[in-house]
Amino acid sequence: MKSFRKELWFNVPNRRDYINITTEINECLRESGIKEGLCLVNAMHITASVYINDNESGLLQDYDVWLEKLAPHEPVSHYRHNRTGEDNGDAHLKRQIMGREVVVAVTNGNLDFGPWEQIFYAEFDGRRRKRVLVKIVGD
Amino acid sequence: MKSFRKELWFNVPNRRDYINITTEINECLRESGIKEGLCLVNAMHITASVYINDNESGLLQDYDVWLEKLAPHEPVSHYRHNRTGEDNGDAHLKRQIMGREVVVAVTNGNLDFGPWEQIFYAEFDGRRRKRVLVKIVGD
Amino acid sequence: MKSFRKELWFNVPNRRDYINITTEINECLRESGIKEGLCLVNAMHITASVYINDNESGLLQDYDVWLEKLAPHEPVSHYRHNRTGEDNGDAHLKRQIMGREVVVAVTNGNLDFGPWEQIFYAEFDGRRRKRVLVKIVGD
Repeated sequence: MKSFRKELWFNVPNRRDYINITTEINECLRESGIKEGLCLVNAMHITASVYINDNESGLLQDYDVWLEKLAPHEPVSHYRHNRTGEDNGDAHLKRQIMGREVVVAVTNGNLDFGPWEQIFYAEFDGRRRKRVLVKIVGD
Repeated sequence: MKSFRKELWFNVPNRRDYINITTEINECLRESGIKEGLCLVNAMHITASVYINDNESGLLQDYDVWLEKLAPHEPVSHYRHNRTGEDNGDAHLKRQIMGREVVVAVTNGNLDFGPWEQIFYAEFDGRRRKRVLVKIVGD
Repeated sequence: MKSFRKELWFNVPNRRDYINITTEINECLRESGIKEGLCLVNAMHITASVYINDNESGLLQDYDVWLEKLAPHEPVSHYRHNRTGEDNGDAHLKRQIMGREVVVAVTNGNLDFGPWEQIFYAEFDGRRRKRVLVKIVGD
């Protein structure tokens, strides 16, 4: 069994953003030389998500409006977590809706995707350097 | 390391439905001959989910009512994504709640399940042919 | 490919609780002897979650308040599932928000974690014995 590991670094200028990282994950897969197996992609921080969905700008806005409705940033005093001095209580909740990780099948050296699947990094507490882990195992 | 791949096809007659696919996944596992490893089952479309929960008809209705409350289909003009001509903006949100994929342990040639775990395909934008991917890796 | 399997048992005295199981998962990994691969940790019951987030007591309260808002326990008659005689309809919904499982990269014999990642068992219908499955595959 072969294994491959790489970290991708981000420094998103806004508090929240949704970034298509499919190209970077494909590069990792080529670099790994793995043809059959599984590819794990996960946020290494607990106020960010990795998820798979459509690369359509209207949808990214829909996600943002919806997540703000389900877990609003303001008022920051609403979250007990923010008593620690943080203001990112909402980000820990939004991340649970969108998920920490995706696991993608690797078949014939490619990400085994349906027609519209794209991998996104979702940032909910940006303006600092944060990481995504790519781990590929297989043959 | 062995690997196995199969697509399951669905054409759900309603917009939304929840279909128990545990029998089909068990058949894939037998066909694969894999005794120890991991089984990934994921929706290949971004308006559908694969999840694990109870096969109880009341619960399936509860999920449907709850998802409609969290991300209602109507009014379709509520979603920017629908300006592309689609009417499935809600389906992209519902799918994030229920998840894209499950990863199940394979032990002694069986899905290593607790007493009530069943695998479901959740369709949120049906009435057309869509796929689920089954990928099993191990020995 | 090596594989390792262990069940962790819980009997949470309250209906809901959030328990840090990172130490137990690290012990499993050491016991497995696996240095490179993937570690799957999943709830074996459908009214509980395994998730990764911060070990901060205010955040655990925030999660509990938020999940009660998104899927309240009362009135129990609100859920069709409870017509079966159960009162845990809400628990099946909360578990979908927080997720069934996590998949963690194993690198150099360690859980390959970012700075604040901790694994939690989230119980939504406690006061009875329930299990978590740990399955590690790799070399």
